Amino acid sequence: MSDYPSVILEQAVNQMASLPGVGRRTALRLVLHLLRQTDEEVEAFSNAFTRLKKDVVYCRECHNISDTEICPICGSPRRDHSTICVVENVQDVMSIENTGQYTGVYHVLGGVISPMEGIGPKDIEIDSLMERLAKGEVEEIILALPTTMEGDTTNFYIYRRIQNAGLDIKISQIARGIAVGNQLEYTDEITLGRSIVNRTEFKG
Amino acid sequence: MSDYPSVILEQAVNQMASLPGVGRRTALRLVLHLLRQTDEEVEAFSNAFTRLKKDVVYCRECHNISDTEICPICGSPRRDHSTICVVENVQDVMSIENTGQYTGVYHVLGGVISPMEGIGPKDIEIDSLMERLAKGEVEEIILALPTTMEGDTTNFYIYRRIQNAGLDIKISQIARGIAVGNQLEYTDEITLGRSIVNRTEFKG
Repeated sequence: MSDYPSVILEQAVNQMASLPGVGRRTALRLVLHLLRQTDEEVEAFSNAFTRLKKDVVYCRECHNISDTEICPICGSPRRDHSTICVVENVQDVMSIENTGQYTGVYHVLGGVISPMEGIGPKDIEIDSLMERLAKGEVEEIILALPTTMEGDTTNFYIYRRIQNAGLDIKISQIARGIAVGNQLEYTDEITLGRSIVNRTEFKG
Repeated sequence: MSDYPSVILEQAVNQMASLPGVGRRTALRLVLHLLRQTDEEVEAFSNAFTRLKKDVVYCRECHNISDTEICPICGSPRRDHSTICVVENVQDVMSIENTGQYTGVYHVLGGVISPMEGIGPKDIEIDSLMERLAKGEVEEIILALPTTMEGDTTNFYIYRRIQNAGLDIKISQIARGIAVGNQLEYTDEITLGRSIVNRTEFKG
């Protein structure tokens, strides 16, 4: 006899456990929770994901998730279209938007270059970034990729592509340093070291 | 503007975050994972839950989740039908089955009596348990409810109902004591106290 009292239950648990970070025990708990909901609630739960897969599109300009061909950020006349912030994924756009500090537009790469995982420049949205830059309307790009070897590699690759294309574009990257509210003694050495090298003028 | 770049994405995140213990950040991560899967995979994911809700039944005898009107345990001639183990939920049946130490049948209450949460005896499967016992074929019931005030209350309620019905049934409960492999110094006082009071004969 199988561990599960029902094959249908087991199949639902298998599907739930296919999500990253969800173990079989948690999956069972979540599935039994769903089973206690009404038919309509379970229907709404399931439909949300098929609808997402069917109807969601990626913005033709920045490749962010969108309901329309051009996302609300790229379509907004209030945003500064001469500045592009290059990020790894959709969550990063949401994080930066939440700060309320950025008025430019974005470019979502959908990953970073990672020879270890077999992800090359052609696997992420770098060519489409170069096409946007080639139009001549962009004055600055801000590299906001993760502080990892892969992020650094991707930064450098983009930098070289822009140089090779002979484009006159200011390339900056987001500041690395001690997080606001953090104490120096608990900061890792690399971050602390960089924050000294890349010190900024104190405006009293 | 909403925090999410897409209303459809937001709806999917809302549904995922409706699961217990899943926060909005985790929900977003899981939904973006689903979005990277194929159409067929997302379809299979969604269908598993609607199918579960539509097709799964509860065993007429023990109220365990089942694919059939009578579950494989209740339907098995190899199980001892004169012994019923009373548990709170489906997971408990699976845990006890996994031990391979129990050959009787089960009764799934679907909860425990909890005045705090407004759960009374009528809200869980106690009447149906009494009906099973009234048939006169059961010789022993094993109470395997959680060691909580609610579990104790439910144990005592079932005990009284059996006494009041004048049924001649042996009532036992699963042993409480030091877990195998645990050291005494790390065991809580109540468990340690009970394990001394309820000591068993040493068979050398």
